[in-house]
Amino acid sequence: MRDFSQSHEWLSINTATVRKQWRLDRIIDECARRGIRAISPWRDQVAAVGLQAVARQLSDSGIVLSGYCRGGFFPAADPSGLQAALDDNCRALDEACTLGAPCLVLVVGSLPGTLDGKPAYRDIARARGEVRDGIAATLEAARRAGMPLAIEPLHPMQAAERACINTLEQALDLCDELDAERSGALGVAVDLYHVWWDPKLAQQIARAGRERLLAFHVCDWLTPTRDLLNDRGMMGDGVIEIRKVRAWAEAAGYSGFSEVEIFSERWWSRPGDEVLDICMERHRSVV
Amino acid sequence: MRDFSQSHEWLSINTATVRKQWRLDRIIDECARRGIRAISPWRDQVAAVGLQAVARQLSDSGIVLSGYCRGGFFPAADPSGLQAALDDNCRALDEACTLGAPCLVLVVGSLPGTLDGKPAYRDIARARGEVRDGIAATLEAARRAGMPLAIEPLHPMQAAERACINTLEQALDLCDELDAERSGALGVAVDLYHVWWDPKLAQQIARAGRERLLAFHVCDWLTPTRDLLNDRGMMGDGVIEIRKVRAWAEAAGYSGFSEVEIFSERWWSRPGDEVLDICMERHRSVV
Repeated sequence: MRDFSQSHEWLSINTATVRKQWRLDRIIDECARRGIRAISPWRDQVAAVGLQAVARQLSDSGIVLSGYCRGGFFPAADPSGLQAALDDNCRALDEACTLGAPCLVLVVGSLPGTLDGKPAYRDIARARGEVRDGIAATLEAARRAGMPLAIEPLHPMQAAERACINTLEQALDLCDELDAERSGALGVAVDLYHVWWDPKLAQQIARAGRERLLAFHVCDWLTPTRDLLNDRGMMGDGVIEIRKVRAWAEAAGYSGFSEVEIFSERWWSRPGDEVLDICMERHRSVV
Repeated sequence: MRDFSQSHEWLSINTATVRKQWRLDRIIDECARRGIRAISPWRDQVAAVGLQAVARQLSDSGIVLSGYCRGGFFPAADPSGLQAALDDNCRALDEACTLGAPCLVLVVGSLPGTLDGKPAYRDIARARGEVRDGIAATLEAARRAGMPLAIEPLHPMQAAERACINTLEQALDLCDELDAERSGALGVAVDLYHVWWDPKLAQQIARAGRERLLAFHVCDWLTPTRDLLNDRGMMGDGVIEIRKVRAWAEAAGYSGFSEVEIFSERWWSRPGDEVLDICMERHRSVV
């Protein structure tokens, strides 16, 4: 298992972590200044600065991506909505290619309309079918573009609004169905926040193996957790056995970045400098 | 599938639903007055009225139990804590027998100390081992008492504090391990709030079968859900396909009560009469 205690060579910053403090260009500068080698940016943050400008800044600074956030949200209430989602995923693929991302992360979506408080339907099996079809269609474009897709299972508490793929086993079943040959074109993003509780976690990480483990995200689960979306903890402040799970991933062949992704009002309200410094320190001491 | 639209013969009220409005003796009276045939009371509510008094009142009113809430919370930081949990579960068994419950529901517990904000350890696999051992020990006493144990998998968002058994599959694996002969002494309580999101729900309900399906709890999942514990929805106000899942349970052989269990500040703040009346109406129209 790689020793992270002496360096942050394998640290990546998911840029949502400091999105309320800084624009993306500033985040890239701050990471470069600290010797952080990788980030994982969100589409809205890229758009706010401009895709080509971000690509140039990354190239100039030598910072690479550990992933691109995000494609997905495939289910829709009608055929035009389904097509619009596919079109949007193709644009996300193009952007990921321009930025040289190693994968496009998929938050697959679920019951359409729930984020606006008005579910268009409640049939989660239908949503899962639409997700399957959406990934299958996007996978063809992704193969042509040479851009792997990383399905991110989300915590079951986000099953209605954000993702109807909620366990690693479910994500891997879909990978096996759509990419039986384990070509590398389709895999998973393992975010500890979403999967730490899963009694089959060790087994499914081993099952995923090197070909399917495309991203590894860390943060912590606080007790109590006060919000279903924006109360993630800094590594070491909660109950997730981060190092133990990272050892499982490495034993399965994962050797990529460890990406810090913290959605939290309490961290967004602190100075960005402080947040990045603490991310680096905890990455050494906890991850 | 039984038709609930014309009667509330199979409606049970989990007494937590109106616990802030009324003491248990009043709840029993109110249920009797409405012709509700069953309740599922909590230990603290029983203790506040007195075990023998509750037993008499139930007998006089003809109201039966659909379950007794609850045993469990097996993990502990040290051997004396583990023993104290076993002793407490034996007392819960005795009370369940006195009240004529059909089963003792187990909320199994997880990382000790987390409910007080101070986890004694973070090793959830250890907690799962202590739960297994705790259920195995309690099962011996339960067999002697003739009181079935119903393991209730809790939603993964409660995995740190309240239960480290988080899927029906995990609960049934434990049932198979400890009661391979499917004797009826060990089974599960299926609470839709906790399991509705599970992609393996239909499969695992079928696996459970009549011998393992000891209780069936209904409420709804709101979008958005604003609290991880006390924001359950009334049936029909959320996205759970209640009737579809009930059909799966009935096809698997379940023919018992449908127990309404709503932990919700918004329902606790309304008059108890109104809440019970709405439970009855929704049970007919939605469940």
